[in-house]
Amino acid sequence: MLITDLVGALGAAHVLTDPDVTVSYETDWTGAFRGRAVAVARPATTDQVAAVLRICARHGVPVVPQGGNTGLVGGSVPAGAAAGAVVLSLRRLTAIEPVDAAAGLVTAGAGATLADVQAHARAAGYGVGVDFAARDSATVGGIAASNAGGERVLRHGMTRGQVAGLEVVLADGSVLRRLSGLPKDNVGYDLPSLFVGSEGTLGVITKVQLRLVGLPAARTAALLAVSDLPAAVGLVATLRATVASLDAVELVFGDGVDLVCAHQGRPAPFPGRPFPQDTPYLLVECVGPTDPTGDLAAAVETATGVLDAVVATTATDRERLWAYREGHTAAVNALDVPLKLDVAVPLARMSAFVDDLRALVPAVAPSARLHLWGHLAEANLHVNVTGLDRGDTGGREELTTAILTRAAADGGSIGAEHGVGRAKMAWVGLSRSPAELAVLAAVKHALDPTGLLNPGVIVSPGLTGSYRV
Amino acid sequence: MLITDLVGALGAAHVLTDPDVTVSYETDWTGAFRGRAVAVARPATTDQVAAVLRICARHGVPVVPQGGNTGLVGGSVPAGAAAGAVVLSLRRLTAIEPVDAAAGLVTAGAGATLADVQAHARAAGYGVGVDFAARDSATVGGIAASNAGGERVLRHGMTRGQVAGLEVVLADGSVLRRLSGLPKDNVGYDLPSLFVGSEGTLGVITKVQLRLVGLPAARTAALLAVSDLPAAVGLVATLRATVASLDAVELVFGDGVDLVCAHQGRPAPFPGRPFPQDTPYLLVECVGPTDPTGDLAAAVETATGVLDAVVATTATDRERLWAYREGHTAAVNALDVPLKLDVAVPLARMSAFVDDLRALVPAVAPSARLHLWGHLAEANLHVNVTGLDRGDTGGREELTTAILTRAAADGGSIGAEHGVGRAKMAWVGLSRSPAELAVLAAVKHALDPTGLLNPGVIVSPGLTGSYRV
Repeated sequence: MLITDLVGALGAAHVLTDPDVTVSYETDWTGAFRGRAVAVARPATTDQVAAVLRICARHGVPVVPQGGNTGLVGGSVPAGAAAGAVVLSLRRLTAIEPVDAAAGLVTAGAGATLADVQAHARAAGYGVGVDFAARDSATVGGIAASNAGGERVLRHGMTRGQVAGLEVVLADGSVLRRLSGLPKDNVGYDLPSLFVGSEGTLGVITKVQLRLVGLPAARTAALLAVSDLPAAVGLVATLRATVASLDAVELVFGDGVDLVCAHQGRPAPFPGRPFPQDTPYLLVECVGPTDPTGDLAAAVETATGVLDAVVATTATDRERLWAYREGHTAAVNALDVPLKLDVAVPLARMSAFVDDLRALVPAVAPSARLHLWGHLAEANLHVNVTGLDRGDTGGREELTTAILTRAAADGGSIGAEHGVGRAKMAWVGLSRSPAELAVLAAVKHALDPTGLLNPGVIVSPGLTGSYRV
Repeated sequence: MLITDLVGALGAAHVLTDPDVTVSYETDWTGAFRGRAVAVARPATTDQVAAVLRICARHGVPVVPQGGNTGLVGGSVPAGAAAGAVVLSLRRLTAIEPVDAAAGLVTAGAGATLADVQAHARAAGYGVGVDFAARDSATVGGIAASNAGGERVLRHGMTRGQVAGLEVVLADGSVLRRLSGLPKDNVGYDLPSLFVGSEGTLGVITKVQLRLVGLPAARTAALLAVSDLPAAVGLVATLRATVASLDAVELVFGDGVDLVCAHQGRPAPFPGRPFPQDTPYLLVECVGPTDPTGDLAAAVETATGVLDAVVATTATDRERLWAYREGHTAAVNALDVPLKLDVAVPLARMSAFVDDLRALVPAVAPSARLHLWGHLAEANLHVNVTGLDRGDTGGREELTTAILTRAAADGGSIGAEHGVGRAKMAWVGLSRSPAELAVLAAVKHALDPTGLLNPGVIVSPGLTGSYRV
């Protein structure tokens, strides 16, 4: 019996079946996706992960790998095609190896949180090139599996660029290790790049080797209120061209900042200056071996469209400014279960795209409230909609189709950084051609021929695995 | 008939069968690999590439894709398992699209040379993050297919990190395009990363979209004679820690420099100072928004073990210093058809590895002459051996096995940047586990089930395509 076999492999304490206990593993962080697991397995070692996969394969029960369960697309919970799966929680694989200071590398268990790995690296004089608000819960395994983006993509790229190696347990329980740490090792297809972003559908990541980045000696953040979005987009180009140390250009709007202030009981960033609700604010951060404040101030002073600015050089003040940006997700989630979309469009088309969104959303859903923020330098916009009837699945789908179709029409992406998961499966064809979808299915079938791993994510379970369409 | 069909698709002028004409396509650049092609097909468009693949699939004739044919592992010629293949030359796909200056991207036909793309980018104020001596012949398609390394890996990484998108013709003639140019587009497995480095075995790359890099305002090179290899390795760490603008740290030895000087009729870099033949020389290059000469000079002056140094700041003087490094391949090829190996070992083990090589080579092949150079900062050593009997295949294999086994024992790579091709097939198992080899075979089988594409490269033709070993 499945449960007996799992208990035999992991011990009874680490096979959870009590619904009161499993519920937090079965519900995604947004509250939009929920299913029932036959059990939650909590292995502590790579060998135990392999044992769980072999047991599930033998019983024909699918497996949903899960890290910190902070994903935003329902990819880590046993919903939809994965209902009744075993949730394979990696959170007990928390070991972090000593930093290899000469090579600038660290290897961590999949279940180590991003914040723990960041602290571990910092103690050795290094930083991690990935960062985002959920750092205290998100695990490095989940970050790799979802190719997380976040607030440092401008300088360091997505997670794929930070991953030097992986340990992965394959669907049949065999273990693949690529942890040499060599900067050059050009022997065969680059499997780590393939597993990064595969969202648990090709194998279960058990260790992640990260390329670390230098810790800048100085860091300055500024919050700028800008006259309008075209001016904000223009400012990105100016900053990129003139501020060598640019590390992040994040976008929020006046209404979102007000929402965060109300949710957190914070003062407004520009007290006594009630800018219009649709005023874009840019959170700009610069880093450098020397204080970058002068460079940033010079660029801002000569820029057109800046209405007001607050500059922060101390860690406390910078955190205060970042809270206006990072508080958005929680503030919106506190209103409602939002419809969450994550799109990219070419930066030159961003302003027109936002204008169209502001018209399109009320046209489709008159009661809806639109919340926008994102990573402007990377042309990545988070589109959240609240005020939708929770039961109104049709309305959510209609709105999703309208917004994602609009993004795709601009040559944009329907999943800039959050991935596909279960939430975006119906719309993958807007961003990927039939030829490419057929290749995705063929690769999935090659590595997971029985569809054991996270069914219903990235590749439709019904696809044949032949790339000939 | 195959030839008739190819002529129908491409015209008679672009289907070459005259042995006097095809020979240059059938012999690899090192002279070590040679085979006969049934024909050389020279399509001019993506559609023609697709037509060639469909024709070859119909006739059951394998296809060897070829760019500039400057590879060093026999991967682009119809030898071994690919004897009698059609060589598919991409060299007529030379169109380069205008640089997207806002996004820092350019898209080029697979047959455009690296030098042409570099010049095109430079005219728009950008550089290409990949560079190496064969730039005038190597094509961007070949660079992507082989995940080329070269002289800028320290700062920019291997080619995979520069590729923003690809157009690829699959084995069945369907065309896969991922050329959105979006910095974030996290929808499904990252197929460009998979095709980069696949050496023509998964698809035929027809367009390459490259992420461009900034052109530094100033550039300084220095050639340093160093007392011994441990001191040179120590100097790498010092330079990395103290020179923010470090761009390259290349390694040559006194005997190699003498060989280049003799081959090119150049004066010695340190006239009147006859350092021992095994003296390591480091070619160090720094770049920056301002002149990095001072930083470099300060680091060198306080470093231990530097015997002498020449600094070059003008383009002419820098090229003169680089010629001592870049002239190695041609100078060694002029002696003989060398045994060419390309290994990486952890930098901390490099000195002991080189000591062992200097003992190991004469023990296996008493008449042999060992030539060493490489990319020291990335711990990548090019091992060339001349003076071997050309017919002495056994001796070459024995020496290869000894050297690659020694590198693997140190946790090294048997193919740091040159790839696998046909030359390294027998030794892939030294760098990749059975579990990983099984995955490589499964991916190959998923994308090329009939083994049409470059048979005998990366994946052995006999493997089943199941990853269950």
